[in-house]
Amino acid sequence: MLIMGIDPGTATTGYGLIRKDNEKIEALSWGLVETSKELSLGKRFIDIFSNISDLIRKYKPHVVAMEKVFFASNAKTAISIGQSQGVMLYCFAKNKIDVYEYSPAHIKKTITGLGRASKKDVQRSLRSFFGSKIRSPKNGKTHFDDAADALAVALCHAIRLGNDEKGGE
Amino acid sequence: MLIMGIDPGTATTGYGLIRKDNEKIEALSWGLVETSKELSLGKRFIDIFSNISDLIRKYKPHVVAMEKVFFASNAKTAISIGQSQGVMLYCFAKNKIDVYEYSPAHIKKTITGLGRASKKDVQRSLRSFFGSKIRSPKNGKTHFDDAADALAVALCHAIRLGNDEKGGE
Repeated sequence: MLIMGIDPGTATTGYGLIRKDNEKIEALSWGLVETSKELSLGKRFIDIFSNISDLIRKYKPHVVAMEKVFFASNAKTAISIGQSQGVMLYCFAKNKIDVYEYSPAHIKKTITGLGRASKKDVQRSLRSFFGSKIRSPKNGKTHFDDAADALAVALCHAIRLGNDEKGGE
Repeated sequence: MLIMGIDPGTATTGYGLIRKDNEKIEALSWGLVETSKELSLGKRFIDIFSNISDLIRKYKPHVVAMEKVFFASNAKTAISIGQSQGVMLYCFAKNKIDVYEYSPAHIKKTITGLGRASKKDVQRSLRSFFGSKIRSPKNGKTHFDDAADALAVALCHAIRLGNDEKGGE
């Protein structure tokens, strides 16, 4: 089972691919899809759609786990988050890949045991799962958080699958 | 100049096509793109993208005028509005059609003279511009408001173009 985690955003979308074979969970790849502020919103969405489609062709994920945001500091931010979510949901539906959405609190709780865990806590848990290779990729340290969040939501889905399997035994 | 007005939504998207030849402005077509609540969000966005693309192929609009919402009663609503906006912006960018966005207050002010005009006021102004044919289409009276809002934003853009032309003389 190959799971693609997505932390959607217009400027920066984090992605993370993990493979789950029975008990074994490993991180295959993670990184960022970034778009230029110089472009119109529509062109940025074309870039996002095209880059995510490339990742789908390359890794052929069976399923997508996406961070679902219900909360935003204001309506403008919420609408902007919604716009990139909409393009993602369209992209995955076009590629016939089911999307599972998890709230940030649920992801944190599943991975660290604490719904209000900090980004550092989440990244520490990711390293304890996947090993010390989980750190900032070469294309910039500042936005590594988004790639880590994408790995985290993918891991959250993998753990849920594991629990469902156990529950079914 | 053929202008396509859009009032985006996930359940119901209103559209309205108007033609502007110098001083003459006429409404060509208006209606709704509706999606089923039974479908996943991703599949609803596929339906929206596909229906809007059909309208683009049929009418070949030169430009799109879209209602831009900055405000929502809560983050969940704002994110939902953003999702369908994102799919629309992606669709028009893919079709290489520029999108002009106008706030509801700006549209009302331009068409009725009053930024806080009611839906009835807007529809009365539409009828005084386009004639009495501007009424509920056969596919339901309840959502005619969305088609009327789409015609209103298209008309708002046409009036702006007219003012720009006068200003340039």
